[in-house]
Amino acid sequence: MAITVVGSVALDTIETPFGSAENILGGAASHFTLSASLYDTVNLVAVVGADFPERYLNYFRERNVDLRGLQTVPGSTFRWGGRYGLDMNSRDTLFTELGVFADFNPEVPEAYRQAEVVFAANILPQLQQNVLRQTERGVPARLRALDTMNLWIETTRDSLLEAMRQVDVVLIAEEEVRQLAETTSLRAGARFILDLGPRLLVVKQGSYGALLFDANGRFFAAPAYPLEDVRDPTGAGDAFAGGFLGHLARRLVSTSAVDWGDYTRALIYGNIMGSFACEQFGVEAIRALSADQIAARYREFVSFTHFDGDWRAE
Amino acid sequence: MAITVVGSVALDTIETPFGSAENILGGAASHFTLSASLYDTVNLVAVVGADFPERYLNYFRERNVDLRGLQTVPGSTFRWGGRYGLDMNSRDTLFTELGVFADFNPEVPEAYRQAEVVFAANILPQLQQNVLRQTERGVPARLRALDTMNLWIETTRDSLLEAMRQVDVVLIAEEEVRQLAETTSLRAGARFILDLGPRLLVVKQGSYGALLFDANGRFFAAPAYPLEDVRDPTGAGDAFAGGFLGHLARRLVSTSAVDWGDYTRALIYGNIMGSFACEQFGVEAIRALSADQIAARYREFVSFTHFDGDWRAE
Repeated sequence: MAITVVGSVALDTIETPFGSAENILGGAASHFTLSASLYDTVNLVAVVGADFPERYLNYFRERNVDLRGLQTVPGSTFRWGGRYGLDMNSRDTLFTELGVFADFNPEVPEAYRQAEVVFAANILPQLQQNVLRQTERGVPARLRALDTMNLWIETTRDSLLEAMRQVDVVLIAEEEVRQLAETTSLRAGARFILDLGPRLLVVKQGSYGALLFDANGRFFAAPAYPLEDVRDPTGAGDAFAGGFLGHLARRLVSTSAVDWGDYTRALIYGNIMGSFACEQFGVEAIRALSADQIAARYREFVSFTHFDGDWRAE
Repeated sequence: MAITVVGSVALDTIETPFGSAENILGGAASHFTLSASLYDTVNLVAVVGADFPERYLNYFRERNVDLRGLQTVPGSTFRWGGRYGLDMNSRDTLFTELGVFADFNPEVPEAYRQAEVVFAANILPQLQQNVLRQTERGVPARLRALDTMNLWIETTRDSLLEAMRQVDVVLIAEEEVRQLAETTSLRAGARFILDLGPRLLVVKQGSYGALLFDANGRFFAAPAYPLEDVRDPTGAGDAFAGGFLGHLARRLVSTSAVDWGDYTRALIYGNIMGSFACEQFGVEAIRALSADQIAARYREFVSFTHFDGDWRAE
């Protein structure tokens, strides 16, 4: 009846052509948690420094997030600064101050090990493996997933491959599939990852939507929601993961196993959460979101992707 | 009961990471014609030189293309050379030899003016206007469309805008929408073009599929077919236009006016033809194509884009 996530909780400083913000709540685990908490209870495993603002803890508390796994230690919270140009699909990192994150050793509380879903958000693959080992003991999680980034492909490839071997679902950006598998063919890259062991691969395509591949050759594609403007894409991929895994966790409450239909709907919920995330700075759009707004956007997705499937040319 | 197209018929020399080919049949009108001829009769308005190979004329004759509007004049056929890198979404032009195309003055035969659909493929906007004027006289075409490219946005913008004012449908690449409308917002760019007068806008996104916008704010999105490999993307956008307008022409035979449902199916047929076009060099994949293969790929599109539309979260 819950989702356990491990990842970064950070303070972000962001500049886009639409504005800027300093020391706002960021980090993959933050974006994921606030998104997934609209679907199911989230257990957060992360670390912050003594300087972490109480008001951001309240963001989580307002969504009934379990914070027993959130360590607060002496020192500074992880800080990241980035700047986007007019092309919101690329960005420059202005600074990275690891602070207390440099010595982060994730510990998964016993109660968190009962979760239906375990998500290792984008962090050092060794830490992901560490958390995956801890969630093997006790009642095994029914679905374990990870996300990653180009940095780990470049610096700790073997460790990342090992982490991928231990999960059911890999979520990854399109260009990272090609980079990891060293191929120009996305389909070949998808097979490379699925051959490691995961039963499902989610390929994130930013403003173009997302793709789903399974180990049996099944395929599904969802275009992105047509946003009027993208104000801040930071964390959109993590919010996407929150919608995708959040829907599956919610389904696992009422069914013993998720099927292909659940995965395709989960991809739509992922796209929905990713689209909302871009509409305001930081986590603000996801914080303000209601279940009704999610349901309304789901109906919009139906109307702009479905066409006459029984059509026969005369 | 026909489609009239004006555009380039060329001899292409192409290099891709998968191979190369010299002086093969190319040009926007060629790719469009062979694609659309799988849906309806095509009337071709173009020019070739005395050196144009007879076997390529036979490509058109095999598909019952009406060639009365194809001028053969002394001189050399338009030649284009291009090279693709590993990223098939971009290419370098190696040479452009206009030959007889430099003095092309399109003349639309009287019989062609009865066509349900008129398509001004990507050529100089002044020539597109010329053809649109000629197809205003006589029985008006029910649907007139144009395609364009970045070169005309940069060099003859006003003339292009005037041509757009005269058509029902604009087909254009995503980056060209932003370039033409001078905005980063695709939705704002779509409104800019629709405000000129067209009732429908088709945005081509290459390996990401295509989008449909109408003047009343309706939207539809189709992801691309997941190709194993892209061997040669040359002409994929023209083959796309052939499927899109070909389907609408076929529909106009049996119905007095096309509706939104027709447009959404047409977008799928466009994507289908664009995907086949990439599978072999030049026009070869489209030449070899059957109606059964198109129908099978249509069913695949249904299966990888449709999800449970009646879903309600508990």
